[in-house]
Amino acid sequence: MTQTDNRRSWIASANGHPDFPLQNLPLGVFSPAGTSPRGGVAIGDAIFDLKVAADAGLFSGEAAEAAQSACGDSLNAFFALGASARRALRAQLQDLLAEGSSAQERLEAMGQALLPAASTCQLHLPAKVGDYTDFYVGIHHANNVGRLFRPDNPLLPNYKYVPIGYHGRASTVCVSGTPVRRPLGQTMPPGNEVPNFGPSKRLDYELELGIWIGQGNEMGESIAISDAQQHIAGYCLLNDWSARDVQAWEYQPLGPFLAKNFGTTVSPWVVTAEALEPFRAAQPARPEGDPQPLPYLLDEADQAKGAFDIELEVLVLTPAMREQGLAPHRLALSNTLNMYWTVAQMVAHHSVGGCKLQAGDLFGSGTLSGPEPQAFGSLLESTFGGKQPITLPSGEQRTFLEDGDEVILRARCQRDGYPRIGFGECRGVLLAAR
Amino acid sequence: MTQTDNRRSWIASANGHPDFPLQNLPLGVFSPAGTSPRGGVAIGDAIFDLKVAADAGLFSGEAAEAAQSACGDSLNAFFALGASARRALRAQLQDLLAEGSSAQERLEAMGQALLPAASTCQLHLPAKVGDYTDFYVGIHHANNVGRLFRPDNPLLPNYKYVPIGYHGRASTVCVSGTPVRRPLGQTMPPGNEVPNFGPSKRLDYELELGIWIGQGNEMGESIAISDAQQHIAGYCLLNDWSARDVQAWEYQPLGPFLAKNFGTTVSPWVVTAEALEPFRAAQPARPEGDPQPLPYLLDEADQAKGAFDIELEVLVLTPAMREQGLAPHRLALSNTLNMYWTVAQMVAHHSVGGCKLQAGDLFGSGTLSGPEPQAFGSLLESTFGGKQPITLPSGEQRTFLEDGDEVILRARCQRDGYPRIGFGECRGVLLAAR
Repeated sequence: MTQTDNRRSWIASANGHPDFPLQNLPLGVFSPAGTSPRGGVAIGDAIFDLKVAADAGLFSGEAAEAAQSACGDSLNAFFALGASARRALRAQLQDLLAEGSSAQERLEAMGQALLPAASTCQLHLPAKVGDYTDFYVGIHHANNVGRLFRPDNPLLPNYKYVPIGYHGRASTVCVSGTPVRRPLGQTMPPGNEVPNFGPSKRLDYELELGIWIGQGNEMGESIAISDAQQHIAGYCLLNDWSARDVQAWEYQPLGPFLAKNFGTTVSPWVVTAEALEPFRAAQPARPEGDPQPLPYLLDEADQAKGAFDIELEVLVLTPAMREQGLAPHRLALSNTLNMYWTVAQMVAHHSVGGCKLQAGDLFGSGTLSGPEPQAFGSLLESTFGGKQPITLPSGEQRTFLEDGDEVILRARCQRDGYPRIGFGECRGVLLAAR
Repeated sequence: MTQTDNRRSWIASANGHPDFPLQNLPLGVFSPAGTSPRGGVAIGDAIFDLKVAADAGLFSGEAAEAAQSACGDSLNAFFALGASARRALRAQLQDLLAEGSSAQERLEAMGQALLPAASTCQLHLPAKVGDYTDFYVGIHHANNVGRLFRPDNPLLPNYKYVPIGYHGRASTVCVSGTPVRRPLGQTMPPGNEVPNFGPSKRLDYELELGIWIGQGNEMGESIAISDAQQHIAGYCLLNDWSARDVQAWEYQPLGPFLAKNFGTTVSPWVVTAEALEPFRAAQPARPEGDPQPLPYLLDEADQAKGAFDIELEVLVLTPAMREQGLAPHRLALSNTLNMYWTVAQMVAHHSVGGCKLQAGDLFGSGTLSGPEPQAFGSLLESTFGGKQPITLPSGEQRTFLEDGDEVILRARCQRDGYPRIGFGECRGVLLAAR
């Protein structure tokens, strides 16, 4: 793969596909109709079946080992193999699928067995999540939320030194398309003397980048920032559903708990570092007066190209909009350049005290808002704490989500002279509370 | 099992054993010398090998199914079977091992293969931890710690309504005997303008009860408090190692992270609800003026006997004490009656918003300090924030832990006319930072 790779595929739908051209090749776990879950690669409107391919002996050497590790119902073993195996598989996949490939005839003969239409397949969580950690590296989000509570001093003193994060709930990380139920919980509305109990009334989404961990480290060891890239398996979209009213009452002194653990939705496709390589960017310059990162968070290569230029958007589709045949409505358009800390800094920080990371661990970036309202990645921000409703194309208004609303995250990378790459969708419908 | 069960075992070491008489029968995972990990039951100085027993056909019906589920290298499948299978196994085990058992001759003939000496076996983590949640239900600890920060108002307003908890790190939960390394991290000592980076200087233990989850619930469902007992597999001791200086700097606004995720030690034996039944107690009366629990946290049976009367202690053994041949020194003696919320309340609260619990999930109670200094379950409390050092029998002083210190937790239940039951030890040596 090079920065000027414009190769086309003999799979026609891949060429000009908004998400999955030959240059992307994200991995996931899917079930072709009537069969068991296995690893696959999105290419155009189809999914390349890694199990069928491995059984047919389409790969050799390290790539064969990689494909073999992805034949089961999760990619954990594939993630654990590391970057070299992943690159070997990618290189052989691109050779197999590129226009002019000598394998084209043989692969075409295998038909739907090798390349079922994605629309006929079910997608699953790509890996069994060991631990899930949610960071808070979107500085505009931290500013916006902090301002609601502390207008004069929105950012806490540790923010520019510490890549703030907390442990989330792994058991309720679910794949795009899984409905999420509005939680019951305690809330303390202003003026109340005792808490209420009932369905959350301030149900929100959060627009985040997800990071899948590859090779891990032993307990008591750490991962140097210069090695961090070797420990990242890939990227996805992540919606960190949040019950703001539950959060406000429960979160002192130990952080969010029930406000966040009822569901976290991720997109099914794992976009690799190789696919994102052309869209790397320098870490945005820190505003004048901001401190330098401490040495364990500072790496020249990471400063030079540790960030990503990925456009992220969040859309909503309400039941009324669905009835009226309206398309999902964009609520925000943001970008991963709004991250104050890079993914490598997150990995280095997480492990610096000896915390063990494992293949299949998941990080969330935290909400990636931009500085302007049209780039705010949560309703808490977009509606200024629920005070300024948003009007939708259906004429409906929203301060927070209502039952039946579907939240959709999308992301794409675009650059002149290079095929556009997308993440696929991260969708979830909000069900009424029990 | 009845409340007046005084049966003796034909295994002599079980009778009068401080931890493991016939009335306890805790489960764990162990490797007899030279073989693979499998489930076992502590009885006196021996371990009853469930795999060898199951292979020999010693159990029937539901108990056989239970033993079969405990033959692998983790008890997750056994936990998932639930209370009925656990009770069936316990009943048949007690019949096999009681004095006068018709099976005695046959079992004795199987010798060390069935009942290896515990001293020849290695103990492992009893289950693969899915998610680990640490609560904060020790009200005296919450008071003591709160007082260090807010002398006039130590408890936050939510404490008496919400069983406060947060998500911890599952990957670094380790079994007793695993050394834990002092973490590196950022700290902001008073008077500093920028943070330091280096080994934590305020390394502490926390004396906690651990709770292993049995049968789980689906995402979006909840567990009613009246059903909570059906979802608990058993109990252990838990040391929530804590880097106080890291915690103070990082924990706002999302809670503890690196300060806690470098290691959490649990005792290897899972003490069952059946073994603890005689030591149940009414939930201690709330002080006058405290609110009633909200309805989802209120259950008559739980109020009547949802608490436990378990004595807990924490001891330290320093390298100098070891050299001088001194015994571990008790730093605190506390009791699970210091819990403001019961375990059933913790389960009901954790799941009330639809969070999925799974077999092998682990809860910590939070530090269980008593109201008096001799019952303080952390050094942060015992030394009043590091201001009043403790003097050890070796003449050494401690404010926080030093490299090479070993922390030992123990617990026991005692009642007139009933054999004493213990938890075994939860030990960990603190290694120097890398």
